[in-house]
Parts: sequence; C-alpha cells; structure tokens
Amino acid sequence: MLPAPTVLQAIDMIGTFVFALSGAIAGVRRGLDLFGVLVVSFVAAVFGGVTRDILIGAVPPDAFRHAHYLLLAATAGLLTFRWYPLVARFTYPVRLFDAAGLALFAVTGTEKALHHGLNGIAAALVGMVTAIGGGVARDVLLAEVPVVLRADIYAVAALAGALIIVTGDRLALPETPIALAGAAVCFALRMLALYRGWQLPASRWYGKGG
Amino acid sequence: MLPAPTVLQAIDMIGTFVFALSGAIAGVRRGLDLFGVLVVSFVAAVFGGVTRDILIGAVPPDAFRHAHYLLLAATAGLLTFRWYPLVARFTYPVRLFDAAGLALFAVTGTEKALHHGLNGIAAALVGMVTAIGGGVARDVLLAEVPVVLRADIYAVAALAGALIIVTGDRLALPETPIALAGAAVCFALRMLALYRGWQLPASRWYGKGG
Amino acid sequence: MLPAPTVLQAIDMIGTFVFALSGAIAGVRRGLDLFGVLVVSFVAAVFGGVTRDILIGAVPPDAFRHAHYLLLAATAGLLTFRWYPLVARFTYPVRLFDAAGLALFAVTGTEKALHHGLNGIAAALVGMVTAIGGGVARDVLLAEVPVVLRADIYAVAALAGALIIVTGDRLALPETPIALAGAAVCFALRMLALYRGWQLPASRWYGKGG
Repeated sequence: MLPAPTVLQAIDMIGTFVFALSGAIAGVRRGLDLFGVLVVSFVAAVFGGVTRDILIGAVPPDAFRHAHYLLLAATAGLLTFRWYPLVARFTYPVRLFDAAGLALFAVTGTEKALHHGLNGIAAALVGMVTAIGGGVARDVLLAEVPVVLRADIYAVAALAGALIIVTGDRLALPETPIALAGAAVCFALRMLALYRGWQLPASRWYGKGG
Repeated sequence: MLPAPTVLQAIDMIGTFVFALSGAIAGVRRGLDLFGVLVVSFVAAVFGGVTRDILIGAVPPDAFRHAHYLLLAATAGLLTFRWYPLVARFTYPVRLFDAAGLALFAVTGTEKALHHGLNGIAAALVGMVTAIGGGVARDVLLAEVPVVLRADIYAVAALAGALIIVTGDRLALPETPIALAGAAVCFALRMLALYRGWQLPASRWYGKGG
Repeated sequence: MLPAPTVLQAIDMIGTFVFALSGAIAGVRRGLDLFGVLVVSFVAAVFGGVTRDILIGAVPPDAFRHAHYLLLAATAGLLTFRWYPLVARFTYPVRLFDAAGLALFAVTGTEKALHHGLNGIAAALVGMVTAIGGGVARDVLLAEVPVVLRADIYAVAALAGALIIVTGDRLALPETPIALAGAAVCFALRMLALYRGWQLPASRWYGKGG
C-alpha cells in the first residue's frame, strides 16, 4: 500500500506551487513590483484554503500555521519574476499540475469540511471554494473578472470531484479509493476540457441589447 | 397571530431568490458562462449572510448548512440564463422584492448579531453588512465599483432599519413589532428613494481637478 | 515611564483616522456619494484589523466592538467629503501619519497574533495583513489594482517591522523596546522610501510580449 499521507502532501505542495506560479505569471504581466508579485503568488496559492478554514471555523488557517506554504509561494514568485519567459514556456506541465492541484484541493477541502461536521451540500461547496478560491482572489486583486467565471470547465470539474467525495461519504464507502476517484474525475474533466476546447456556453442573450 | 417564523422564512427565501436574480442578471450581461452565472447568483444571494456569520463567529455559515439557499440561487441563475429578457422585464416586482430582501436581511442580521452578544453599534453594522454584502461582492467579482457605493439610498435604508432594531433592544421593547417597524422603515425608505429619484450627493469636489 | 497603553491607543486612533482619510480621498475622487465615501473610509480604516481578528479567531472583531473606530472613520469621511481640497493639501502630514499607522498596525497585529498562539511566520504574515489590508480592500472596492502591490516600499516595511517583533519574541527580549524598534524600522523604511523615491522594480520582462 502506498504511504498515502506522503503522496497527498507531495501533491498538496505541488498544487500550492503551481497555483502560486499562476499568480506570479499574472502579476508579472500586470507590471507589479517584486513584492506585489510575491503577494499575488501567495494569495493565489492559499486563498482557497484560507477561505475553507474560515468557513469551517478552523482558525488560524493552515496556510498561516505551516511555513512551507509561504516558502513554496515565494519560490514560485521569485522564479517567475526572474525567469518569466522560461516559466511561461512550461505551459503544458503547468496546466497539468494546475489540474492536479485543482483536483487535490477539491478533494481535501471537501474531506476536511466533512470531518468538521458539515453536511454534504455544504462540504461540496467548501471543497469547490477551496479549489477555485485562489484563482478568484488572484483575478480580483488584479481588477479582472475571474477567469473561472468566464471560460472553460474549471469550477464544474472541482464540484464534480467534490460531489463524488460527498456521495462516497453518504454511502460509507472506504475513504481512500473514493478520494482517488474524486480526484481522477476532476482531473480528467479538466484536462479533457482543456484539450478538446470544451466550454460552457454564455447565455444566448449576452450582447443582445439589455 | 401570524405564524411569524413561517412568514420570516418565506421573506428570507424571497430575498435570497431576488438577490440571486440581481447576480444572475449582472452575470448574463457580462457574458459569463453558465457556471459563472450560477456562482455570481449564489454569491449575490448569500455573501452578506456569510460575512455576518463569520464576523459573529457562527460558522459554518447558514448558507452552507441549509441546502435551500443553494437551490434558490441556482434556480434564479438558470431561469435568468435561459429566459433573460423575460426576467429583465420584471423590473418592478424585482425592485419591490429586492427592497423587501434588503429590509429583512438588515433586520435579521442585526437581531442575530444582538443575540450573539454584540453591542448596539456593532450589531447595526453587521445588519447593514448582511443586507448590502451580496451586492458588493457581486460587483467586485465583476470588476466594477459596487453600485451601492455610488447611487440611490440603499445602504442608508439598511442602516436605518438596523438602528431601529438596536434602539428597540436598548429600550427593551417587544421584539416582533420592532422588527416589523425596522423592516417597514428600511423598505419605505428604499422604495421612496427609487420612485422619487432620491440620491445622496457626490462630493462637490468630484471632477474638479485633483 | 510613559503610560504605554495611552500612547499606543493614541497612535492606533491616529492610524485609524489617517487610513480612513486615504479611503475618503479615493472615494471622493471616484465620485462616490456621501454614504459610499463613508463606507470606503471605514473599510480602509478597519479591514486590516478585521481580517487579522478573523484569521486568529478573535470574533467579533475589535472594529465592531468599539464605537470609536466607526466614529473616527465617519469623521474622516465627512471632513474629506466637505473640504476635500483642504484635506488633500495636507499631503505631508497625512503621509507621515499613514507611515505611523502602518508601523503601529504591523507591530500590534503581530503581537496580537503571537498572543493568540500563532507561530512566528504566521504572526508576521498576520501583522503585515493588518497593516496593508485596509489599503488593499479600499482599492479592490474601487476596482483598481491595489497600489501597495505596484509601487513604493510599503508592504515590505510592514513585514520588516513584523519580523522584528517575531525575532524579539523568539529571543524572549522585553516587549516594549522591541515594539518600539519594530515600529521605528517600519516607519523609517517607509519614510525613506517616500522621500528618496525608493521602489521595488517590476520584472524586467514586464511589457515584453507575453
């Protein structure tokens, strides 16, 4: 059997790092100074988890209690600030790890909420917020409409993963395989959406007067 | 005597639904995809109450514990996404119910804060935040200056209703009539402002250099 | 020996007032109505402290429990709304007090976090958030990229002050001189940055394609 905590922690760290990269890239593109880039990196990496912990009453949030979140985010920010073209070239692995981070954060966010006694609907919502919160906060800080609200299947993938966890919990299925299934569904949905260009539609009424 | 909880719950549900409509309409206008419209609907409907619950330490917030908030917001979002022109035509009842939602959220937010031991000033502020928080978050997500900061008498009406609750509490007056009075004042102020075009002024210095 | 609490309270009140002025000036410039200006004043003055209190679990936050925060913010908002040119002329003392507020909020935020049992890294982050949170929220409400992410040495000064407090706490040094040292370093860094035009650079890659 795999040493699950170690694997989870590794993916959690990769997810944190990749979400921080997304913040750093956005910050460099908008001309933020070094510290601004570091702040946006940190916010993109941890805002989802911080919101989760505030919503379930688990304060101070994990991201403020364990130094490695800050170190990972700072490293991602510094690398991007100094070698932006190099980082931006790694689009493919960044998207891959971003999808992995999305999947993991959705799953662990949902599980943490269930462990704190939230009901299924609430836990799935908290899981989704955990997964997309960082990206939303990153875009709000940069005065842009959050990209997850506009394009691609992203939040939907997170919600799908979260709902699998909740369903497994209701049916009292074993936790580890359900966690893997939830993460796999979220990851697969996200990757398929990316490479097949799947998008949710805008309303047919968009742009027609009003 | 009226079965007060049922009436309050009904108005609370109507308020939730109407606030969600305001989010959905704004989301469709900005060209969000279906899921983005649903997210903004939910945020507009519940952000005020979620902020209230975080501020007073009542986590997880109500909106995450009771599924009907999510269902109401999703219904409002789907209806608007599919039949936007129809929904947008109901401007009059939407404004009416929006004012009712504002009044109810201001009153119940203030009362919940008082029951959690907050003092009067704090409870009135929390009541106002409950009432206007959803609209502020909706506009921030869409990268716009919140409309409640710019136009009409809206937050002021919420604050007036909240202060009546706090005054009644100080004077140990009976709770139900005071709640009705607070809601009535907030509702009347808001409706009068709408139909008489009452506005607070901008500073006389706006636009003059600086 | 100085009556330290009184001095601290005085600086805390001055900091609150000056941060509220910064919100009011920004609100008048964007054409908000009177109530909008008051809301932005209050948010700029207290958002950092409210975030601190939510993160460490000290709810309801101080700013909702003590009426003087609201009164100070309202006074700053009203003065600016009515006599904007006069207020805007006091650029020098406003910057001076703003730096003092930054220093004080960084120091007291860090100390409060340490007293609530947070570790050093977490406490320094919370201290920095306390100091810069109000300015960030002010700019987000006005749909602008927060100025602290773009220009001058501001958040860095707050972090430097916070780290001195944490270091002093680790070494078990006496609290009052360490607090003064942390505040002095933050204040000096901020004033030097202002008057020597010190800035952190943007990435060398900003504006070059991508």
